[in-house]
Amino acid sequence: MLVLAVPKERTVGERRIALVPEIAKRLIKLGVELRIEQSMGESAFFKDEAFEGAKVVEQTADLYKEADLIFKVQPPTEEEIALMKPNAVVIGFMAAHQFPNRVKALRDAKITSLAMELVPRISRAQSMDALSSQAAVAGYKGVLMGAELASVFFPMLTTAAGTIRPAKVLVIGAGVAGLQAIATARRLGAIVEAYDVRSATKEQCESLGAKFIDTGVKADGSGGYARELTDEEKAQQQAVLAKHISMSNVVITTAALPGRPSPKIISKQMVEAMNAGSVIIDLAAEGGGNCELSQPNQTITHTNGVIIHAPLNVASQMPVHASEMYSKNLFNLISPMIKDGSLQLDWNDEVIVGSTLTHDGEIKHQATKAAIENTGS
Amino acid sequence: MLVLAVPKERTVGERRIALVPEIAKRLIKLGVELRIEQSMGESAFFKDEAFEGAKVVEQTADLYKEADLIFKVQPPTEEEIALMKPNAVVIGFMAAHQFPNRVKALRDAKITSLAMELVPRISRAQSMDALSSQAAVAGYKGVLMGAELASVFFPMLTTAAGTIRPAKVLVIGAGVAGLQAIATARRLGAIVEAYDVRSATKEQCESLGAKFIDTGVKADGSGGYARELTDEEKAQQQAVLAKHISMSNVVITTAALPGRPSPKIISKQMVEAMNAGSVIIDLAAEGGGNCELSQPNQTITHTNGVIIHAPLNVASQMPVHASEMYSKNLFNLISPMIKDGSLQLDWNDEVIVGSTLTHDGEIKHQATKAAIENTGS
Repeated sequence: MLVLAVPKERTVGERRIALVPEIAKRLIKLGVELRIEQSMGESAFFKDEAFEGAKVVEQTADLYKEADLIFKVQPPTEEEIALMKPNAVVIGFMAAHQFPNRVKALRDAKITSLAMELVPRISRAQSMDALSSQAAVAGYKGVLMGAELASVFFPMLTTAAGTIRPAKVLVIGAGVAGLQAIATARRLGAIVEAYDVRSATKEQCESLGAKFIDTGVKADGSGGYARELTDEEKAQQQAVLAKHISMSNVVITTAALPGRPSPKIISKQMVEAMNAGSVIIDLAAEGGGNCELSQPNQTITHTNGVIIHAPLNVASQMPVHASEMYSKNLFNLISPMIKDGSLQLDWNDEVIVGSTLTHDGEIKHQATKAAIENTGS
Repeated sequence: MLVLAVPKERTVGERRIALVPEIAKRLIKLGVELRIEQSMGESAFFKDEAFEGAKVVEQTADLYKEADLIFKVQPPTEEEIALMKPNAVVIGFMAAHQFPNRVKALRDAKITSLAMELVPRISRAQSMDALSSQAAVAGYKGVLMGAELASVFFPMLTTAAGTIRPAKVLVIGAGVAGLQAIATARRLGAIVEAYDVRSATKEQCESLGAKFIDTGVKADGSGGYARELTDEEKAQQQAVLAKHISMSNVVITTAALPGRPSPKIISKQMVEAMNAGSVIIDLAAEGGGNCELSQPNQTITHTNGVIIHAPLNVASQMPVHASEMYSKNLFNLISPMIKDGSLQLDWNDEVIVGSTLTHDGEIKHQATKAAIENTGS
């Protein structure tokens, strides 16, 4: 019988969990033997008892000893990898560029690791796309953070003491996070402008009620991400954006390039042209931020009174729904491979192949392999 | 010429200001000579230069020396009162029950004090009603706080990984704060239920998209507030409410009685019937709170994982629009009394009479007079 193990997340501040009770039930129906580490679900408000039919394990070593399949949110630590048995399959975010030693440990221990951030962005794999599901949470939360820090109402209000003008919100980057931010800011009644270097996003932004800013720069790239801009294009983009940024009450930036530094879109000079009390929510802080002045994981007030908030791991701050979506992504990826109570990865499936980081003693993801093995070992 | 002075607020954590530049301009047009204390507007992001035509005064004593009229948010301190000249008129929140010594000082110094919380709740005075304008801010912010602390989305979302159910929000108390909370939670896409002891509020709640909870208790009182309930009525109310509270993701309570302790509506037992991760935002914390477990000015997590947030002075957390509305309330109250560059309070005007706390060496508000003078001088 296939033993699925779900450990407690070890990363500080991570409140999401890789398996919620609803998905646990569906996996058990598929013939999986479920083992969870004690109080695994606590950070997302699920008690051990909520996982009906699961065996609750006290010692981490006992949990990993017989595990054929392991669900994670954050990359497994070297200590965790050392506890896994050879040929075990572990699925989660792997952040290979950030943790090369963990990738080597996975390779050397002959663990098959599937990285959720490597799931190909093809139509069939949308339901497995954890970057998207977690970005939706971040975009929603980003607007709430902006509304909380703003010293003005978002909606227009007609009161006995007069009319309150609606807030102006500018969303930069119209990926999943940006589109969810647009939708949420519109729900709250703000006037929303949106910008993305990929001009193809114009219609999507407009259909959600945002006015699209045309800077004249087109930079649609591959895999749904934008390509990097030339210096000239950047200058043109910035000149147009600067004007719109200076008139906004809240700017939400979401321009992230996976595994690479986030493009600096808002310069110090642009911040200084904003009004006191205006707010920047920088959702690209993981890659250093889209604003030159952002301090990842901090809220600062610039000398001119502009508040710059650059939170990390935003999805983790809404652990129930973020975990529910993430857990469904894992289920959608792995459940077609579970047959008669055993896991058979289909090496002809482009989603499995594309997501595989390590397998059978090798690093399978070419860019990661080049980065890690060219620098020795 | 009528000298209007606006000091910097002294109360810790108070970010609202009593005069915004837009209203300053209108008062100057009426022939007022405006003096502001240095950096008076800073906490609401207004620079001294924004107050065109105002004289900026460095020393507080100089500000008060010639002031005929003084605009305040929080009650003037005894030190401030000592600096005022006899027969000066000061307008602001006075919180007489909280600061009896300040009321005595105002009386003894022969200051005319108008208390914004005493403005009669009659139709003509709606545009002067600062309790209402500030409650609207609190209701809006309360929902944002609830959404921030909740670990679930408010709106229903249809994603590639499945459908996210909308959050259930319960608003208790359907005054201005409660109605604004209902409207804001609905904007964010939550399913909203509402409750008020005053059954007359049912239609208003429903027109904003909330489902009204009928407990069978009717307690419409005078002045737009609810009367206090009998023990039996409380038991009946609680039995029905308990069920709805236990099913809510976020409960926002707004049942405040001015100058009196807030009614305890949510018992410890009711909190313990809620799910882990659910949130209570207690907007009646100034009067001790509507929830038995609320700790004013704190966010606590009860042993069962329910988060209880009981913020104080919520309106101050949105200083730009809260100040704009408050400043308009002051203007609407006082501007009809400014004629030919001088202030003539109309003692036949029921709004002025009703709002007056002290005048000409006497406490004019009878309940305050009784409370203060019966306990010795």
